[in-house]
Amino acid sequence: MINLGKDLSRLLSKDKVKTDPEDLYSYASDSIRYYAKNNPDAVILPSSAEDVSTVIKYANKNSIPVTPRGAGSGLAGGCVPVDGGIVLDMKRMNSIVEVNRGNMTAITEAGTVLSNFHRAVEKENLFYPPDPQSMSVCTLGGNIATRAGGPRGVKYGTTGNYVLGLEFVLPDGEIINTGGTCVKNSVGYDITHLMTGSEGTLGVITKVISRLIPLPPCKKTIIVGCKTAELAAQIVSTITANGAVPAMLEYISQGATGFLNSYIKTPLISEMEAYLFLELDGIESQIENEANKIRSICKDLGVSDIRVIEDAKEAKSYWDARSKLQPILQSFFKKLIVEDVTVPRDKFPELIRALPEISAATGLLVGAAGHAGDGNVHPSVLLGEVNDETNKKSEEAVDMIINEAISLGGCISGEHGIGLHKSAYLEKSIGKRQVELLKQIKKAIDPDGIMNPGKIWTREAK
Amino acid sequence: MINLGKDLSRLLSKDKVKTDPEDLYSYASDSIRYYAKNNPDAVILPSSAEDVSTVIKYANKNSIPVTPRGAGSGLAGGCVPVDGGIVLDMKRMNSIVEVNRGNMTAITEAGTVLSNFHRAVEKENLFYPPDPQSMSVCTLGGNIATRAGGPRGVKYGTTGNYVLGLEFVLPDGEIINTGGTCVKNSVGYDITHLMTGSEGTLGVITKVISRLIPLPPCKKTIIVGCKTAELAAQIVSTITANGAVPAMLEYISQGATGFLNSYIKTPLISEMEAYLFLELDGIESQIENEANKIRSICKDLGVSDIRVIEDAKEAKSYWDARSKLQPILQSFFKKLIVEDVTVPRDKFPELIRALPEISAATGLLVGAAGHAGDGNVHPSVLLGEVNDETNKKSEEAVDMIINEAISLGGCISGEHGIGLHKSAYLEKSIGKRQVELLKQIKKAIDPDGIMNPGKIWTREAK
Repeated sequence: MINLGKDLSRLLSKDKVKTDPEDLYSYASDSIRYYAKNNPDAVILPSSAEDVSTVIKYANKNSIPVTPRGAGSGLAGGCVPVDGGIVLDMKRMNSIVEVNRGNMTAITEAGTVLSNFHRAVEKENLFYPPDPQSMSVCTLGGNIATRAGGPRGVKYGTTGNYVLGLEFVLPDGEIINTGGTCVKNSVGYDITHLMTGSEGTLGVITKVISRLIPLPPCKKTIIVGCKTAELAAQIVSTITANGAVPAMLEYISQGATGFLNSYIKTPLISEMEAYLFLELDGIESQIENEANKIRSICKDLGVSDIRVIEDAKEAKSYWDARSKLQPILQSFFKKLIVEDVTVPRDKFPELIRALPEISAATGLLVGAAGHAGDGNVHPSVLLGEVNDETNKKSEEAVDMIINEAISLGGCISGEHGIGLHKSAYLEKSIGKRQVELLKQIKKAIDPDGIMNPGKIWTREAK
Repeated sequence: MINLGKDLSRLLSKDKVKTDPEDLYSYASDSIRYYAKNNPDAVILPSSAEDVSTVIKYANKNSIPVTPRGAGSGLAGGCVPVDGGIVLDMKRMNSIVEVNRGNMTAITEAGTVLSNFHRAVEKENLFYPPDPQSMSVCTLGGNIATRAGGPRGVKYGTTGNYVLGLEFVLPDGEIINTGGTCVKNSVGYDITHLMTGSEGTLGVITKVISRLIPLPPCKKTIIVGCKTAELAAQIVSTITANGAVPAMLEYISQGATGFLNSYIKTPLISEMEAYLFLELDGIESQIENEANKIRSICKDLGVSDIRVIEDAKEAKSYWDARSKLQPILQSFFKKLIVEDVTVPRDKFPELIRALPEISAATGLLVGAAGHAGDGNVHPSVLLGEVNDETNKKSEEAVDMIINEAISLGGCISGEHGIGLHKSAYLEKSIGKRQVELLKQIKKAIDPDGIMNPGKIWTREAK
């Protein structure tokens, strides 16, 4: 019989292997504790691609499931070791190998924390736009595995738009390098982007080559209070239709604004049904131009609370509050289900309109704080009490949200991934034949199914 | 025995099937005639995804190779029917189904000609940046199949950065839809980008959903004459290092400038070893800002011929000449081999420096006209006479160019794809294990190998 802890301690070194029950327990879920199913049997903290390769070869030989994990800040259960086995905690592999000013690229290990990476590239006057709100903890490898986004998606796209290449370990333990540091590459199938969003099911990402762009020299924050949610939706469409593309364009519903006020100097007005947080970036004249356009759109639509924040520190306070919203809500409610449906940008008003109806139909609080500019809305279902009835109701609410998004031509996940949370909806979303196609690809690359089993699609009953 | 023409005429309709020898002959190659090996046995002009599905099901049942074809303007032999069989000419599927201003997306059939698409979206004040120089004939489907780029890659990236979703026909004839009209999507493996660059080997693209951006309101062309190639390279690096990102930044070597002069009012000076063609775009103040920066960089480096072209028509004449360069050269030389190697941007000077050495070593003309701003250089080997000796020499020159690019950390194709032209170099470029991985994916999706056989990698001898 195999003894995971002993075997792996011999193959690597003891300090890279954890098997104490309390350690194992803390690796059973991502940031949503109710996804926890099984503890892993061992947690490995590799310090190199070679370490990862050693572990994978061992796991492959012994048919042990392997679940890679960045910071565990995911919201869809992607890094939950449903069948136990080995969790690979990548956080020791955190060096920023190179930031190349002349080529505008960077090479980092997969466990690099996103905000550290932001700081490193911005020091070189470069910019890496993807900004999931967990950026102070989440890792680049995790971002790639989930095709993570963030508020800046509206102007800059998401992680997939900035990955040029990867080093990763295949399910047979071989280390390969895809893509590279060239910004143009048309060499065979795009394995780099096949891995992007594959949620640890096709291999373990160990290194990332990112494309960078010049750091916009200026930015400006605008806060817009909207008497009705309808008005907020109208402002968003009008701004888009006028060709202004803010770097961020966030929607925050009435229920959420109160929670933000302890972080903000001038409180948000509780009577407003929604607030829009906007950031413009670029050169000064361009920002002025866009700010004037937005101000005049808002005035024409009868907005009374419009704040153009000139002070950088004050502007930051709004964005800090915004990024803390999910943990704040998590601390106030017994259970928080953060949805991640996305609709075409022009369908954003319709999705927003549907939420009060879903709230009324289920008797649950359904708020929304999300990326209005790109249609990625994050409706949230908030439970004050958790019991069979509220759980059932919350499932109904989620079901209604997802169906509404699909009927609007939307998709079931914009930036969190499918993981466990959405796997039951996959077929409805992309069709039976496409789910089969994903399975064919999985089978071709990971024939024994050791990599992060039980994710993305639901398993057939054995 | 099967009779392709008869069978397919019965399954579709007669006007969609061509079997006359002269028709078949004209589908034997792409724009590089010497790739021609076999004529196809039948050419089909489908008018719907259902037509394509019918053909593929028939081909699948009878193990007949199928080669999809856009405009046939490729340069790597991607659409050459090496084993005969069926060529699918997609050009009748050319409707622009939707340009959605509010969502900034478009849906088009795969046979849509790129410049028609450009015009349609620009009418809505939107912008689709990819601009392969064959844009007046090439199709969106072909662009996706080859992950095509163009001069605007330096600022805007290539086709892959703008594809949100596809409709395509799998090798078993089923029609699926990947991605969608949402700009954020994290739903399972990224099949859309797996198809992008797959050169017709995994299925037939029938519809394309593209992401659009606001049309930059202004642009300005700057032409810079450089006494030495070295100086041109230095200007390119300095501009990049200063954070100015032109929309286009093209390098044209001395040998090529003469051919352009019949299209340009003020001739390019023949003594210059190289010219740089730049286009800036954005709002007026930003362009002024960048133009001043570039002008002062050029002056500091001692440039004497710097032309800021204020007249739109005159500016267009430079870019028209640039885009005609390859056909012009093709008409002057007996054989033209257009290389497509790409290096990291900061290695551009080194690649340029290597070309005269390769020219000297082989005794052949080796020019370069390419996308300096993104390292995608297009060295060209030009043959006045074609015979065994010059062919052998030209192979040596290509080999030296490719090896030089690889040794600089570059890749063997930036935007043309691998096709036949580069398949012998694939393993050198991405490694044996990764080539195996491509084959595993191919086998999973197209188990009988009917889709565009003989491309991307070299076949094992039977």
